Amino acid sequence: MSAGVRQTQGVRKICVVGIGAGDPDHLTLQAAKAIGRTDVFFLLDKGETKASLIELRERLIRGYSQPRKRIVEGRDPDRDRNPADYTGTVADWRHRRSLVLEELIAEHLKDDEIGSILVWGDPSLYDSTIAILEEILERGAVEFEFEVVPGISSVSALAAKHRVGLNRVGQPFQVTTGRRLAEGWPEGADDVIVMLDAQHAFTKYPDADIYWGAYVSTPDELLAAGPVAEVGDEIVKTRTEARERHGWIMDTYLLRRRQA
Amino acid sequence: MSAGVRQTQGVRKICVVGIGAGDPDHLTLQAAKAIGRTDVFFLLDKGETKASLIELRERLIRGYSQPRKRIVEGRDPDRDRNPADYTGTVADWRHRRSLVLEELIAEHLKDDEIGSILVWGDPSLYDSTIAILEEILERGAVEFEFEVVPGISSVSALAAKHRVGLNRVGQPFQVTTGRRLAEGWPEGADDVIVMLDAQHAFTKYPDADIYWGAYVSTPDELLAAGPVAEVGDEIVKTRTEARERHGWIMDTYLLRRRQA
Repeated sequence: MSAGVRQTQGVRKICVVGIGAGDPDHLTLQAAKAIGRTDVFFLLDKGETKASLIELRERLIRGYSQPRKRIVEGRDPDRDRNPADYTGTVADWRHRRSLVLEELIAEHLKDDEIGSILVWGDPSLYDSTIAILEEILERGAVEFEFEVVPGISSVSALAAKHRVGLNRVGQPFQVTTGRRLAEGWPEGADDVIVMLDAQHAFTKYPDADIYWGAYVSTPDELLAAGPVAEVGDEIVKTRTEARERHGWIMDTYLLRRRQA
Repeated sequence: MSAGVRQTQGVRKICVVGIGAGDPDHLTLQAAKAIGRTDVFFLLDKGETKASLIELRERLIRGYSQPRKRIVEGRDPDRDRNPADYTGTVADWRHRRSLVLEELIAEHLKDDEIGSILVWGDPSLYDSTIAILEEILERGAVEFEFEVVPGISSVSALAAKHRVGLNRVGQPFQVTTGRRLAEGWPEGADDVIVMLDAQHAFTKYPDADIYWGAYVSTPDELLAAGPVAEVGDEIVKTRTEARERHGWIMDTYLLRRRQA
C-alpha cells in the first residue's frame, strides 16, 4: 500500500486497449468486450491534427460501448518533436502526461469502475501508455489495477499488406528507429523494421529491399516495395507530399539486406 | 502467366488468417469475416499432438464459418526437430509441405472460391505459410491470389500479460531464436525477444530480467518474471514439467539487459 495524498478504498481498474493499426476490423473480440465493460474513456489527444485516428476511436466507442459510459478528455502536453536530448525530452513529456492522466483518474473514475485508454496499434510497441500508468502508480497518489489488451500492431499490418514475413528462416530481426538507422545498419540482423523515421534513413542503403507503408490499413494507405535504389526516391516524394496533405504521417517499413 | 502443368481459368483465392495467440477472443473482426467468407479450410496438422491448438481452430471454424464450407486435411510432412543443418532442413520441410498444400488446392478449391489457412499468432512472425504459398506460385502448377489477415502474435500477448513494453524509449529490440541467443547476446540491442528456445539459453544471462510465458492466453498459461538469477531455475523446472505434461510447449520471453 502506498501512502499517497489521496488514498482510495475500492478497486479502480484501468484497461489499456490496443485497437489495431487503423482498420476498424482490426478490433479483437477481447478489445470489443473491454470497450463494452468500460465506465469511463480517457482521451488524451495529441496536439497535432490526426483526424482519422480520432474518428476511428470515436467509431469504436460508438459501436461497442454501453450507453451510460462517460468520456473525459485531457489536453495532452505539447512535445518537442525534434529535441536535442530525445530520451530526456520524452521522459519529461511522459511525466507531464502522467500528471494530466492522474488528475483525470482521481477526478472521474469511481471505486469499482473501469476506465479505458484506447491505444492505436499494440500497446507494447513504441507506445507510452503502460509506462505512464506505472509512473502514476509509483507516485502512489491514486491507486488502481490495470490490464493490457493486445492489438494488431502497425508492423503486423504492414507485413500482412506486403504478404511478407518479418523474419527469414531461423534468422533474427531488429526493430529500431529512423534516428538509429541513420547512424548505421544495426549489428547482428539483416532484417530491420523501422518506426518513426522522419529523416528517410533508408536512402542510405540502396542495395537493400524495402517494404514501406504509410497510414496502413486506413483509407489513405500508401504502399511501396522494391530495391531502395529503384523505389527510394519515389517513397521520399510520396511521403513528403502525403505528410503535407494530411498534416501528419504514420509510416513503417521493413528493410531487408540481401544475404550471401 | 506461368506455364504450369495444371493451368486454371477463374481466380481462386487463398486467405492466410492469423487467429491470435490462443485466446479465442484474440480473433479480429477481419479474421472472423474472412472465416465467414471461406469455402474451403485447409488444415495441415503438425505431427505432434497439440490438442489445444486444434481445439481452438475447430471452435473458430464452428463459430464463424458458413454451413456449406468444406474442410480438407493434409498430413503435414514429418520434420526433424533437432537437425544439424537447421536452415536446409526447414527449407526441405517447407518444400514437402508446399507439395502437400499444392495438391490440396488443385483438388479441392474451385474457380472463384476462397480457401483459408488458419495460422496461430500472426502470419508474419516465425510462420512458414506465406513462404509456402510463394513457393507454390513460383512453381506455377496451380494459380491463385492470396492475402494475409494479421493476428495477435504470441509476442504481443506475452507483453500484454506482463504489462510491459517491448522497447524502451527510443531504443531498438531484437527478435531472435534460442539457438542464436545461446551463441551470445545479440549486438546492438539490450532488449531481446526469444522464440523457439528449447535449450534455456536465458540461463546464460543471470543479470538480465526475464518476462517469460508459455501457452500464453490459453487456460494452461504459465507466467514468470524477474531477474534470471532469481527466477531462471524455476522457469527451467516449470518449463520441463509442462513440456512433459502437455507433450509440447510453446513459450516466448523478453530478456532485458540493464542499462548504465
